Amino acid sequence: MRDEKSFRPKARLPSGFRDRGPLELAAERRMLETIRRVYESYGFDALDTPFLEYADALGKFLPDQDRPNEGVFSFQDDDGQWLSLRYDLTAPLARYVAENQQNLPRPFRRYQIGTNFRDEKPGPGRFREFIQCDADTVGSASPAADAEMLMMFGDALEAVGLKRKEFVVKLNSRKLLDGVLEAAGLSVEGSDIARMRRGIVLRAIDKLDRLGVDGVRALLGKGRKDESGDFTKGAELSAEQIARVLAFITSGTNSNDMEGALSKVESALRGSRTGEEGVAELREIAKTLSACGSGNSVQFDSGIVRGLDYYTGTVFEAQLNIPVANEKGESIVFGSVGGGGRYDDLVARFTGQRVPAVGFSIGVSRLASALRASEDVAGPLVVVLILDRANAGSSFRMASELRAAGIRAEPYVGDAGMKAQLKYADRRDATIAVIEGEEERSRGEVTLKDLAAGAARSKSVESRADWVSERAAQVSVKRERLVDEVRKLLTPRG
Amino acid sequence: MRDEKSFRPKARLPSGFRDRGPLELAAERRMLETIRRVYESYGFDALDTPFLEYADALGKFLPDQDRPNEGVFSFQDDDGQWLSLRYDLTAPLARYVAENQQNLPRPFRRYQIGTNFRDEKPGPGRFREFIQCDADTVGSASPAADAEMLMMFGDALEAVGLKRKEFVVKLNSRKLLDGVLEAAGLSVEGSDIARMRRGIVLRAIDKLDRLGVDGVRALLGKGRKDESGDFTKGAELSAEQIARVLAFITSGTNSNDMEGALSKVESALRGSRTGEEGVAELREIAKTLSACGSGNSVQFDSGIVRGLDYYTGTVFEAQLNIPVANEKGESIVFGSVGGGGRYDDLVARFTGQRVPAVGFSIGVSRLASALRASEDVAGPLVVVLILDRANAGSSFRMASELRAAGIRAEPYVGDAGMKAQLKYADRRDATIAVIEGEEERSRGEVTLKDLAAGAARSKSVESRADWVSERAAQVSVKRERLVDEVRKLLTPRG
Repeated sequence: MRDEKSFRPKARLPSGFRDRGPLELAAERRMLETIRRVYESYGFDALDTPFLEYADALGKFLPDQDRPNEGVFSFQDDDGQWLSLRYDLTAPLARYVAENQQNLPRPFRRYQIGTNFRDEKPGPGRFREFIQCDADTVGSASPAADAEMLMMFGDALEAVGLKRKEFVVKLNSRKLLDGVLEAAGLSVEGSDIARMRRGIVLRAIDKLDRLGVDGVRALLGKGRKDESGDFTKGAELSAEQIARVLAFITSGTNSNDMEGALSKVESALRGSRTGEEGVAELREIAKTLSACGSGNSVQFDSGIVRGLDYYTGTVFEAQLNIPVANEKGESIVFGSVGGGGRYDDLVARFTGQRVPAVGFSIGVSRLASALRASEDVAGPLVVVLILDRANAGSSFRMASELRAAGIRAEPYVGDAGMKAQLKYADRRDATIAVIEGEEERSRGEVTLKDLAAGAARSKSVESRADWVSERAAQVSVKRERLVDEVRKLLTPRG
Repeated sequence: MRDEKSFRPKARLPSGFRDRGPLELAAERRMLETIRRVYESYGFDALDTPFLEYADALGKFLPDQDRPNEGVFSFQDDDGQWLSLRYDLTAPLARYVAENQQNLPRPFRRYQIGTNFRDEKPGPGRFREFIQCDADTVGSASPAADAEMLMMFGDALEAVGLKRKEFVVKLNSRKLLDGVLEAAGLSVEGSDIARMRRGIVLRAIDKLDRLGVDGVRALLGKGRKDESGDFTKGAELSAEQIARVLAFITSGTNSNDMEGALSKVESALRGSRTGEEGVAELREIAKTLSACGSGNSVQFDSGIVRGLDYYTGTVFEAQLNIPVANEKGESIVFGSVGGGGRYDDLVARFTGQRVPAVGFSIGVSRLASALRASEDVAGPLVVVLILDRANAGSSFRMASELRAAGIRAEPYVGDAGMKAQLKYADRRDATIAVIEGEEERSRGEVTLKDLAAGAARSKSVESRADWVSERAAQVSVKRERLVDEVRKLLTPRG
């Protein structure tokens, strides 16, 4: 046992984690509540799986293969089994469906809002703990299920405050990409080596934004050395194969004319059954969306692949096209605020039986920073001073009465004197301080000190006369009129 | 890299974890929201610390010392540092205060609602992942801070639906217990051995409910062998010391007359400054509470110690005195639904400087199971069938219109035919199915099938005539009247 008394730990957080205060949390709570309501309005039910799962149940689908434990926080249980903190909400859902399949409606539709964990290199706006809002339809291969996801995705983003023109949902299909590889003479199924190579190709394409065409070209070929000198092995495609892949991923970007774009890529896929199937599915999705007027916010983009390994069909991602302030206050345009796709093989990992599924995830912290920070919803605060500890009960009673009237109120429960108590009330951004001195108590009165007025006055000496004429910063009122008088002071001036 | 394709993991959860569905989550959400509002009404601000912290920052304060890692899920980071999943919300708060002290108001008042993790032996109603609602006042040694906690604790329990007579908050102080040990000639501070021995005494007393007086007596002396044959080393007090401790902890149980109980134990503490200080503090708390009418639900109980090592003064715990149904449906009276106390040394672990603090925690799952399960708040659901995939857009549009009118609606996005779609709608407990067949579409009509009526009728053949006379289970309506007609069907019959 370590001597707790003499050991003095440093008070600090591991990098990539952070504490969050009331303004951020209030804004986030409103956002999560709004998204939850949209998901429920579409008939999705809440399901919460635990934070911890057996490592083998979660599987290894994260894109970051360079780190020893592949991005997942894992540890051994007392009985030697490996447990992992969930890195997303989809892998646990597959475990849940495999375990409870016989008791679930088909399709099974659920949403989950929860914190996920990734042991990645932290960066600006990139944390190792983050909240995601997922919705999934499990047990349907129909493109109608994909179309509904795209529609709900857009509705949710709009509901939290984005305008339709401020974002776009970009849609592609892994089947198209597999079709290109197939048409280029590369097997994408069967052996592990073929599947690994496909993975390398997908991850290379996923870095198009960051590395540009030349970087991706290197990763599709021999490999690439980054700025730090680290070498990443490439997929070793032939020059012709590389040319075909690059031609495809750069062909249909940002296209509003889905049918036009699909016709264009279709020729590159001729002869690949997988590719043709993918195009037909995208066509059906586009048709359903435009029939119900939701087509405009969805664009085909052949460069979208998504990082997670488990996608098998459609992949999509929502991108903001408005500038956003980063932590340093600089204006940046950042990419994805969420995405998703079809993962038809994830349940089969457990059962051997294919259960088609599609879902998406909204990344909350990125989206929240994209929306304007909004006002504190908790409401104005009243601090009741305690000048004489023997009469603390009297201050408690006043705070209780105010709360019963719906007004946030706290007695000052520290150890300091009156001056420090008023300073505390200021620090807390309280609007009113209630003071009951000995002499006032004998008269049956209390003093209400208008701190907002005081603060405003001290900020602007010019307008002092206005403030004073409008209202004294301090009034004596009858004790029994406390709630009424406080309410009067809290009413916005007119 | 493991061959993901041939490896088939088992779909199962580690013991002590569970999945939770929509009814439980809706009830929990309402409860958390209510508690949050009470905390905010008292002027406590939200603060969220991360799930993971450096292990040394959290410290080792859990009562269960028998397990290798003492109940905490821990693992090594890439750079060799130990990280732990938080086992409570108090230890991270101490880290936060130590790190940010100069920027915080004093006292600093925060609440946090979050999931904690303990690597304990799971048992009935005992999970390794659980939600707690904490509130803390940091930076005040005043008994007024303790009194406010007790008051808010009771208010929160009442707000979530307990009646005042259904629970009691039991109050004690570690200072009284230390006083007894001191008066019995046992040092409680100074050497590590003295502190360890005190810890053993506290944990022994904490087991009074479970082991009875004889079990505690054994643990205060040489030690105790449990049913499984495991031996727990005792505190090795002398017979006279044991008698004094037992006399104290059994002296003032369940006493409604706080002053009477305190006078009674006071004599046993005579000569111990710590003990006398503890009694004076409890008196001041009692006085404040009774002055504001909150005294009745707080009882002195000399047998309450709480398990966590970090408490230094008051300790308290809320106990239900109503029977509750356990997972098997059996009626049981279970103990604590939360507790707290004063922990004046927790911040000093980091800074060396004492920062007095008091707080409490409500355990959500236990409290939730104590309250009646309530109705699904998401509202009735409408399922719109898709009989012809080429016209899926039309079903999507109907679902959209219903949602825009505030009615939960989902198109059927699976692959099955009409009969299976209706079965699905039943499985989902949908109230209405909307059907647009080809022929109906040509007439500009849709069929509304009243599933609730259908279900009720098939359950009770006797009342069939009533149902049919009251309303047909299926009606054809004009497409443009869809929303109005659905709304009419959803209106409770009167």
